[in-house]
Amino acid sequence: MTDLQAIGAAAKRAAWALANASTAQKNRALEAIAAALEEHAQEILAANAADVEAARAGGMSAAMLDRLALTPSRVCAMAEGVRDVAKLPDPVGRVLSGATLANGLEMEKITVPLGVIGIIFEARPNVTSDAAALCLKSGNACILRGGKEAIRSNTAVASAMRAALKAVGMDENCVCLIEDTARETATAMMRLNGYIDCLIPRGGAGLIRSVVENASVPVIETGVGNCHAYVEKSGDIAMAAEIVFNAKTSRPSVCNALETLLVDEEIALQALPAIAARLKEKNVELRGCARTCEILPEAVPACENDYAIEFLDYILAVKVVSGIDEALAHIRRYSSHHSECIITRDLAAARRFAREVDSAAVYVNASTRFTDGGVFGLGAEIGISTQKLHARGPMGLEAMVSYKYVLYGDGQVR
Amino acid sequence: MTDLQAIGAAAKRAAWALANASTAQKNRALEAIAAALEEHAQEILAANAADVEAARAGGMSAAMLDRLALTPSRVCAMAEGVRDVAKLPDPVGRVLSGATLANGLEMEKITVPLGVIGIIFEARPNVTSDAAALCLKSGNACILRGGKEAIRSNTAVASAMRAALKAVGMDENCVCLIEDTARETATAMMRLNGYIDCLIPRGGAGLIRSVVENASVPVIETGVGNCHAYVEKSGDIAMAAEIVFNAKTSRPSVCNALETLLVDEEIALQALPAIAARLKEKNVELRGCARTCEILPEAVPACENDYAIEFLDYILAVKVVSGIDEALAHIRRYSSHHSECIITRDLAAARRFAREVDSAAVYVNASTRFTDGGVFGLGAEIGISTQKLHARGPMGLEAMVSYKYVLYGDGQVR
Repeated sequence: MTDLQAIGAAAKRAAWALANASTAQKNRALEAIAAALEEHAQEILAANAADVEAARAGGMSAAMLDRLALTPSRVCAMAEGVRDVAKLPDPVGRVLSGATLANGLEMEKITVPLGVIGIIFEARPNVTSDAAALCLKSGNACILRGGKEAIRSNTAVASAMRAALKAVGMDENCVCLIEDTARETATAMMRLNGYIDCLIPRGGAGLIRSVVENASVPVIETGVGNCHAYVEKSGDIAMAAEIVFNAKTSRPSVCNALETLLVDEEIALQALPAIAARLKEKNVELRGCARTCEILPEAVPACENDYAIEFLDYILAVKVVSGIDEALAHIRRYSSHHSECIITRDLAAARRFAREVDSAAVYVNASTRFTDGGVFGLGAEIGISTQKLHARGPMGLEAMVSYKYVLYGDGQVR
Repeated sequence: MTDLQAIGAAAKRAAWALANASTAQKNRALEAIAAALEEHAQEILAANAADVEAARAGGMSAAMLDRLALTPSRVCAMAEGVRDVAKLPDPVGRVLSGATLANGLEMEKITVPLGVIGIIFEARPNVTSDAAALCLKSGNACILRGGKEAIRSNTAVASAMRAALKAVGMDENCVCLIEDTARETATAMMRLNGYIDCLIPRGGAGLIRSVVENASVPVIETGVGNCHAYVEKSGDIAMAAEIVFNAKTSRPSVCNALETLLVDEEIALQALPAIAARLKEKNVELRGCARTCEILPEAVPACENDYAIEFLDYILAVKVVSGIDEALAHIRRYSSHHSECIITRDLAAARRFAREVDSAAVYVNASTRFTDGGVFGLGAEIGISTQKLHARGPMGLEAMVSYKYVLYGDGQVR
């Protein structure tokens, strides 16, 4: 098995130096990495072609193959993504607050990098450069561990990045890739206390669960989005149909896509057919409660599990509810705390929904699809947190730092 | 075994209501709790006397017995502590930032409670009311699990608090106590995902390590303080002696007490005798490196482990270092990232130490003993975080909340 301690120690050493690198140095490294990705595009594409070929032979689905495959323009987009990160403000060294204490001690609370960030991801090789760039800009070394389907691609991308770091005089171990794709290695990585300061899994529900179950290093849970829309009885039905259509069908495979529709029984008879008609344009399968199936002949009966899972597909669970109490109770029970929306004209209902729904993003009369670091003005995102510690919702560079207190005195004792 | 799922579910339900309680309601509950602690002082003291008697019969050390024992004035102090928390500003519902997005969506980032906070602690029964009050004020339900030595005391304190909650019309499960003190129950509590949003261990290094190793719920690591003072070659020796004396002896049992002294070899011959003379007033045992033992005949040779542990006693590890590089390397290797200080007159050394030491609090010419929520202006603290996710250093009410994004629109889709 790979010597993870050695990789951890190398990353930690790199992190110490990187924590004190200037913004100019970090940006120079990012520019060099972007250029290296373009220069080494041929090697990266060749490695990726081998990955794709092996995956196709192994029977990977078309959707997964699309995530895995790189093209010349995708490699350019990876390089551009790295350049975009260089343009973002440096989150390190900001003074968050400060005070002179009664005894004269001068105290400042200053942002500092987290240290070493571990990223465990699945089949998308562009995560390698995206995540490494965000870590580098925030002064963090990273240890990347991608899926075995993308190992050749990830190795080629990481090797271009590491060469670029070396070329600008920085420690190449600012970006470490674990090339051993055995499951035990991933599990051991999750327990690399003392070396990894924060672990961010990026992938499906199974990966996230495995990390939460097994990790002893601090984890930020990301990504799973069982998102709900609730059409309250005063809601504008035409608006509801547009929002549900957009939230479900504009990109069904992403975590901010809609998975369950709740409709107030008072307007179900008008609202459900209008919404269903719009969803029919994209052949969305509807899985409904008994009342939904009475109203919509095209709906099939939903089972309990349909309300619990992310379909990530053209499928929508539907339930008629007796009012906002039942809607809130349903969301409390099944939500993954990502994004939910209400469609309403009623002020009290809007305020109550916004207050009581315990999710990272709560929308009143807007699509859940807006939950995104770019849209929220964060520049880029390392993931979308569905937990409450440290960061919630889209995490940009500001979520990739911690802080420390620095106190200057002249001999104060307590 | 105790039905932890049932306790978790009850706490979660209580947390939903508590999250939307007004500041006035929460303060009323805190006042009622304070009054109840005073009213039930006799029961609490009787229960505590039984705990103390059992612990003494079991051979508990005098220092531990002192932590366990309550007196009428300690119970009053517990009640006053709860009243003090009522006076602190409510951390929930603050708008951290906001913006109108390009598409007209109005976005606010608003603080919200974490939900259910688990606290695992050892023999100090006053933690029961301290922690519960801070959780309540920050809108969080809590599940408390104290040590078996204090179980009668904790049960009496929790029962007074729960009765007070009920009396003011709030859910008594805002404060839950696990009365089962079996180790397996604590371990099961650490894996109560879906019910516990954040687990804060309060206790010694063994407890913290067990929680970090076993928990699958998010943890905030607290407390362990292997704190260092480095007397740089330009440092004022008289100031160094005062700071080291204060940091080591003003309260050796706490986490911000000094554990290791590093002295630059250029001034060791002058500095060590001056510092040792001051420490002799409190009979501090010195465990030194070879050079220290040459200079100080009273020092005994240190072993490797002496640099790694918290003594929490009148013992100090001492090492002569060749300069700031070696001092920083030593701290990097052994520090628990709590508090460190440098004594220096040199600007570059001060700035470098402040920048490169990776600890929650870094002091220039002041005692490490100041790392404390009260001193830092946080009002009260639930613990001192030695990790970098979520909160670092003393954690007040502001560290006991998360945030969510609320977005109001009029039909925006993406």
